[in-house]
Amino acid sequence: MIQATVDLNCDMGESFGTWRMGNDSELLKYVSSANIACGYHAGDPLTMQQTVKLALENGVAIGAHPGLPDLVGFGRRDMAVSAKEVYNMVLYQVGALAALAKAEGAKLHHIKPHGALYNMAATKPALAEAIAEAMYKYDPELILYGLAGSALVSAGEKLGLATASEVFADRTYQHDGTLTPRSQPDALISEPEQAVQQVVRMVTEGKVQSRQGMEVSIKADTICIHGDGPHALRFAQIINESLRAENINIAAI
Amino acid sequence: MIQATVDLNCDMGESFGTWRMGNDSELLKYVSSANIACGYHAGDPLTMQQTVKLALENGVAIGAHPGLPDLVGFGRRDMAVSAKEVYNMVLYQVGALAALAKAEGAKLHHIKPHGALYNMAATKPALAEAIAEAMYKYDPELILYGLAGSALVSAGEKLGLATASEVFADRTYQHDGTLTPRSQPDALISEPEQAVQQVVRMVTEGKVQSRQGMEVSIKADTICIHGDGPHALRFAQIINESLRAENINIAAI
Amino acid sequence: MIQATVDLNCDMGESFGTWRMGNDSELLKYVSSANIACGYHAGDPLTMQQTVKLALENGVAIGAHPGLPDLVGFGRRDMAVSAKEVYNMVLYQVGALAALAKAEGAKLHHIKPHGALYNMAATKPALAEAIAEAMYKYDPELILYGLAGSALVSAGEKLGLATASEVFADRTYQHDGTLTPRSQPDALISEPEQAVQQVVRMVTEGKVQSRQGMEVSIKADTICIHGDGPHALRFAQIINESLRAENINIAAI
Amino acid sequence: MIQATVDLNCDMGESFGTWRMGNDSELLKYVSSANIACGYHAGDPLTMQQTVKLALENGVAIGAHPGLPDLVGFGRRDMAVSAKEVYNMVLYQVGALAALAKAEGAKLHHIKPHGALYNMAATKPALAEAIAEAMYKYDPELILYGLAGSALVSAGEKLGLATASEVFADRTYQHDGTLTPRSQPDALISEPEQAVQQVVRMVTEGKVQSRQGMEVSIKADTICIHGDGPHALRFAQIINESLRAENINIAAI
Repeated sequence: MIQATVDLNCDMGESFGTWRMGNDSELLKYVSSANIACGYHAGDPLTMQQTVKLALENGVAIGAHPGLPDLVGFGRRDMAVSAKEVYNMVLYQVGALAALAKAEGAKLHHIKPHGALYNMAATKPALAEAIAEAMYKYDPELILYGLAGSALVSAGEKLGLATASEVFADRTYQHDGTLTPRSQPDALISEPEQAVQQVVRMVTEGKVQSRQGMEVSIKADTICIHGDGPHALRFAQIINESLRAENINIAAI
Repeated sequence: MIQATVDLNCDMGESFGTWRMGNDSELLKYVSSANIACGYHAGDPLTMQQTVKLALENGVAIGAHPGLPDLVGFGRRDMAVSAKEVYNMVLYQVGALAALAKAEGAKLHHIKPHGALYNMAATKPALAEAIAEAMYKYDPELILYGLAGSALVSAGEKLGLATASEVFADRTYQHDGTLTPRSQPDALISEPEQAVQQVVRMVTEGKVQSRQGMEVSIKADTICIHGDGPHALRFAQIINESLRAENINIAAI
Repeated sequence: MIQATVDLNCDMGESFGTWRMGNDSELLKYVSSANIACGYHAGDPLTMQQTVKLALENGVAIGAHPGLPDLVGFGRRDMAVSAKEVYNMVLYQVGALAALAKAEGAKLHHIKPHGALYNMAATKPALAEAIAEAMYKYDPELILYGLAGSALVSAGEKLGLATASEVFADRTYQHDGTLTPRSQPDALISEPEQAVQQVVRMVTEGKVQSRQGMEVSIKADTICIHGDGPHALRFAQIINESLRAENINIAAI
Repeated sequence: MIQATVDLNCDMGESFGTWRMGNDSELLKYVSSANIACGYHAGDPLTMQQTVKLALENGVAIGAHPGLPDLVGFGRRDMAVSAKEVYNMVLYQVGALAALAKAEGAKLHHIKPHGALYNMAATKPALAEAIAEAMYKYDPELILYGLAGSALVSAGEKLGLATASEVFADRTYQHDGTLTPRSQPDALISEPEQAVQQVVRMVTEGKVQSRQGMEVSIKADTICIHGDGPHALRFAQIINESLRAENINIAAI
């Protein structure tokens, strides 16, 4: 019997100066990949260094989490950035984190864009290609994390980058494999049991039941664990334990 | 006869977004090292990329020019930053530029701190050591540019980094080898001939005449060429041509 | 005979820290309204104060020119800001400039949003209403400058604000009265004579010829004079002189 | 019998974008003055508006809390700003908050500089005068809050501004009336009873016992209540209740 393996990834290092966010040191016990903010939507050099250290201590893979230059909006507001701007801002942020990691003896493992940049890159090929090209030029060994089925994953594959298709435990899916928009009432799964069931099935069978009731094929290389919100830690723990109870191995790609 | 060699360095890439500064493409014809701003006091990812390209085209060595996080003040205002903050902000900025350079097939050659960070590191050993340590941990092959005789050069030497002692063509010196503070009337040399004479002597004899009239020993590995001001380009050209007329070779360290 | 009057407005105070932009002191001789940047897309407190002083010296009406929080993009990149965010960011910027003006004995005369905020408010009623409401709550005597025929002007009128419909000398118009998008080849008018003709006709007859050749009605209370670009000053002077030669009075609303 | 009155002030609105700080809605029950951050060291337009509303609901006086332009450092790092820069940055921030307050029907009551700006203005007359002059030019009715015995209070008095001398419940004093620097071991008072005793005596007798054991005269118009830290709320409540138990009235100046 082949044991299934999946990665659990979580956004981290999203404090900024004096302001704290997330409970990184606890969450790191349950995930296998950390996406570390790089100063554009969150994070500052000191926070980045500390998060790199924490990830190293917990044996968690270190990834860059570049975002749009929008601290007040936490990188969640779409901006009309050009492909050229995205290419350069990704290199800038990835290089900054890579240097802080290198000084701690660590190497970057992956890149996952943040918030609005992640969402725009999921549907806009020009931006997706800019991100993939920046990675390819900087270090073609880096793994690109993107929404399963997105333009971002396609752009990475086209350049020959290793990619990881990301799925969500706590979001419902449409019959075409896209996420139900948050504006709709049943976009979120709040019951941990239901989330666990969805995740286990995505990992072991490569299927998810759409909210319209159809069975949809989905590639689930890595599961997004949200680090904010009051129940984040409990949720991470449940997902982690339920997967292991199903004999699914949790490890970075 | 041994031919003397000296480096001419100039701050570059100090535009920001729509705002232009300096005449980089012309100045690059006369210098051997470019110190490229990294986004904290000036520069943005696009400007950084373009400046890297220009330097490559002109065969000029590419260095990082990290500064304090103060765009409005252009990194010229002292800030009470801790050694830990300096260590991390230098790694952040150096890594960001290194990534943009790497994507263009280039490698960083040196680091020269900017403005208030340069000045503070000249006299505060804790900050100087933080900069040197960041460089050492990131890439011990990088060359540290600092004020001749400063705490920064000492900190680099202590860690075994290659260093370049920087002198100024257009500033007068005190009898103890420090620069005459700008607040004093004869701090600046405005006559190009006098500046050229001072520079040639520093390079060929390792001496400078202090404003008090004494002869002072000085190490002159690299000469700072100012990129701003109405006469910057003309001044760079005169220094360059006068040195070559004296059979002094101009090349990066 | 009734003498026609029109306002000439120009964006000003768009320097930032050490970086210079525009030739405000010269342009102020030819315009009647200054739209002063408020620190979000350009401008800083010192630049704002100096620009207020210059406007006062030239007897030019002082307006606020609030923008999106995007220095690198100069406020020209659309951002998915909410109406609530726009409402508060407009109040913030307008209040900041009003205080600097008050300290110089001046009072704000008008508000004109900048760049992407101006464009988004021209077509999105929710953002237009947020801007108008911020003005209304802060000072209902302020005049709202917006694109002729836009949602912004409508929002102002609905709240009972005085409005000024803005037209462009150097842009062509569509048959529905909107500007030809810059992406199209004949969007810009580069011949000063043609620009002057268009402006004079808009002011005196309330008509403009569309690029499709039709005559379109247009309200021309204020003409936008661009302050950047190599020919800005010459263009401002020609428009100013040509209007006065036609016996059109140039004055703020 | 004359009833003593004192003001309790607290820094508020120090969240930034998504990041939360302090428990403003609870703290507002125990204080009489709120110093609201203005976007330079903390605060953003939306946070500022919400904090103004909360203060209004609780009948607490609204003041501006301008700081240095240093979000990452939370305005706590000294910067070599000029008097001219301080003058303009104070006007900018005060005006921004005043506009958001005016839109809610409120008027500013006082100004208290934040962090490093507060500390620098306590000892540097040029900066103190710049702050006082900005206030005087903007609205001479505003009350200036500054450290008791500081250059800031003197600068305000010299211009004829109403001032409020601020004292600290949880800090010890030197024999010359200055605060014991935080670098010293007994700088902080951690026992609530001792803090209450110190405060009551300062308010009712105008005296404080120095850490050297001497009795020192001190003017105590307003008491600083810290809003951060795990015990902030409990401490605010104890000070409030103890003062009222001593028949001391708590009210804004």
